[in-house]
Amino acid sequence: MINIEKVLDLLEKNNYYAVKLFVNEMYPADIALLIDELDTKNSVVVFRLLQKDLAADAFAYFDNDKQIALIEAINDSELYDVFSHMFLDDTVDIIEEMPASVVRRILNNTSPDKRKKINEILRYPESSVGSIMTVEYVSFKKDITVAEAIAKLRKEGTSKETLYTCYVTENRKLLGYIDVNVLLTSADDTKIEDIMETNVVSIPTTEDKEEATRQINKYDLIALPVVDHEDRLVGIVTVDDAIDVLQSEVTEDISRMAAMEPIEDSYFKTPVFVHAKKRILWLIFLMFSATVTGVILQHFEDAISVLPVLVGSIPMLMGTGGNSGSQSATIITRGIALGEVSFKDIFKVIFKEFRVSIIVSFALSLINIIRILAMYKIGILGDIGGHSVFIIAAVISLALLLVIIIAKFIGCTLPLLADKVGLDPALMASPIISTIVDACAVVIYFNIATAWLGI
Amino acid sequence: MINIEKVLDLLEKNNYYAVKLFVNEMYPADIALLIDELDTKNSVVVFRLLQKDLAADAFAYFDNDKQIALIEAINDSELYDVFSHMFLDDTVDIIEEMPASVVRRILNNTSPDKRKKINEILRYPESSVGSIMTVEYVSFKKDITVAEAIAKLRKEGTSKETLYTCYVTENRKLLGYIDVNVLLTSADDTKIEDIMETNVVSIPTTEDKEEATRQINKYDLIALPVVDHEDRLVGIVTVDDAIDVLQSEVTEDISRMAAMEPIEDSYFKTPVFVHAKKRILWLIFLMFSATVTGVILQHFEDAISVLPVLVGSIPMLMGTGGNSGSQSATIITRGIALGEVSFKDIFKVIFKEFRVSIIVSFALSLINIIRILAMYKIGILGDIGGHSVFIIAAVISLALLLVIIIAKFIGCTLPLLADKVGLDPALMASPIISTIVDACAVVIYFNIATAWLGI
Repeated sequence: MINIEKVLDLLEKNNYYAVKLFVNEMYPADIALLIDELDTKNSVVVFRLLQKDLAADAFAYFDNDKQIALIEAINDSELYDVFSHMFLDDTVDIIEEMPASVVRRILNNTSPDKRKKINEILRYPESSVGSIMTVEYVSFKKDITVAEAIAKLRKEGTSKETLYTCYVTENRKLLGYIDVNVLLTSADDTKIEDIMETNVVSIPTTEDKEEATRQINKYDLIALPVVDHEDRLVGIVTVDDAIDVLQSEVTEDISRMAAMEPIEDSYFKTPVFVHAKKRILWLIFLMFSATVTGVILQHFEDAISVLPVLVGSIPMLMGTGGNSGSQSATIITRGIALGEVSFKDIFKVIFKEFRVSIIVSFALSLINIIRILAMYKIGILGDIGGHSVFIIAAVISLALLLVIIIAKFIGCTLPLLADKVGLDPALMASPIISTIVDACAVVIYFNIATAWLGI
Repeated sequence: MINIEKVLDLLEKNNYYAVKLFVNEMYPADIALLIDELDTKNSVVVFRLLQKDLAADAFAYFDNDKQIALIEAINDSELYDVFSHMFLDDTVDIIEEMPASVVRRILNNTSPDKRKKINEILRYPESSVGSIMTVEYVSFKKDITVAEAIAKLRKEGTSKETLYTCYVTENRKLLGYIDVNVLLTSADDTKIEDIMETNVVSIPTTEDKEEATRQINKYDLIALPVVDHEDRLVGIVTVDDAIDVLQSEVTEDISRMAAMEPIEDSYFKTPVFVHAKKRILWLIFLMFSATVTGVILQHFEDAISVLPVLVGSIPMLMGTGGNSGSQSATIITRGIALGEVSFKDIFKVIFKEFRVSIIVSFALSLINIIRILAMYKIGILGDIGGHSVFIIAAVISLALLLVIIIAKFIGCTLPLLADKVGLDPALMASPIISTIVDACAVVIYFNIATAWLGI
């Protein structure tokens, strides 16, 4: 737990020594939560009390705004200290979010070698593996012994973000890898090439970063090596970065499924106006789409005037259709995200959803007939205009049956088609599907009604 | 890539030597994909050609059905080999999914020590941290030196699932931890207690397993130590298991948000009947809920008969209301899952969503007035029964404004209330919210219409 009151109290009493002892015992992530709550003046005070490596670690967890405020408040030598203690992938993450003037100041205060590496990573597109990789990893030559490798690790290890997995290279070409536990538990005089794993999963810099996450998850990796187009090792993606990618992809998918553009910051950190902006365009688009359903509905104005009872079933038909379609769209979208389903399975998916829809639609239609007869019996069905209640029930239930089958067909095909043409399948989830299904529901329903009831 | 044709071809030619060479070069996860595609006879053949430790690793990735089939096909000594090479947390995962007769056979073929540990873990509830932890970890006494610790690691390391993070204990009480890179890069004669990190994040066995995932993500951990109620170290949760928990929680949330119970297996592995079962109950419940909206609609039968134009706006009002509510419900549900929002923030959330809804609703209502006037101009609005088009536009737009504000209020409060009373907030997402908002939309709309238009 972060005790903000305690820190504020100590700061007020100018007891900086106690603050220093207190904050230097905290985790970087918790220090960030604390400093994000303080005003700029106190933030800088607390930040300056941190040990250099802890300051660098914590800095990577701050809000963007706080990072900018701190960079503006500290001098160049302090800035150099922070960025020289920071891992390269964190540095790149920060630079990507900064205004140009701040970026220039950061780059001017990093070593030429690090600046070169930063620029290399910055050139990769934001969605690519290259943009999330770190270039700090451990590599061995294949002909050294375990004892030599351990000695090398112990000498160089501190500057590497992860040494849990070490890589074996020759002229920068990736030959294999060796887990640190295998290394440690092998005999001193064993050659690296005799214990290295040569069947190594790697990923090109240009691949989608989501794919790196999938590989790390599939093979339970701590780090995934990244290679260029000539199969040379250029970096690694670590599991903690993979989890961050996973979480933001999920937030993106869930937002799109609910007809919103994803927000980048947390809920409370995002201003009201940004929230409104992320939601309003989809609502306007869907409002106009729903108008189409309304216009179709007006075409059946005569049927409605003659038999208003028909209107009573519209919310049920549109709701059930929309929900059926959303179910299929959601399960397929999630399947695509998990790599279980892809466009080449489209006919298998359609056939499977068809069988599911047959079971679901017959069951629901049967229950619906019973519901209508029961409502008629207790007198809350409304005026059925002299028609037989059985005909009314048959009309509504047949419409329901067809709407569910069509909804599940549309729901399962649209995300696959979207994925095929390079769109986010999550865009095709609930709201769009519901809108399309609504229109279908009205057309099917009133066509059956007018034909069978002779209106 | 997995070359199934090649393996099948080699098997047909009885070239087991080539199969053996081929499969022993593959990754466990890929071997599982291969064997899952083979029939039982060939599965057993290929499985028997695997090296013991690889066989154990691959086994943990198989489908449940395949695991049962293989256990039934192999003899007791082979079974012993598989489970003695398998990590404890994987063993427990498998046992939890097996029928009782198979469990008995597995337990009869494991060492008494391992059987005791399995039984300990099996007693933890499925949603608890205890159920996903592994009890294989490295621990040191605080007064040994770095050289002694490294020697201990090198001697004992192979039997531990992860030695990336080592723990320091005294009478099983957790004193601190030390990352293997810190250990390796410290001088030989340094005492462990001088370099261990004493500010250690740990989690109780009884805590929700989602919380372990959150901690691992927040602090970028490779493993999280698990303690009992007396703060004694009993196990660790590794990052790969945390990712699996994360993925299945996300699938669960997304499924519930689309009115389905989550499926446990992949999309194609799940039979049609199970898919139908997971979806049908929600559809029936929502169908009956929508019937309520229908009954309310029938109350306004007279208004509908007199002015059928009113019906044309129902899909737009219900759709926009449902979408607005879903947006709020989804963003709050995701916020709860990420630990950003909780019940204590309910008034902050309501106030924030209110301000968002003001912006969104005024913008949409304005656009809606323009839409109605434009549709009237080009003659597709339908019969407005002698009323002024401005009054019609005002009625519909005022209804829209109120529906959006109410939808966002309901959408943001229900998930928080659900979470407060211990229900899954995802249950309160889109479909239920849409159904409630639909009913509200009809009531608001027809009350305004009948009052202003004097029907």
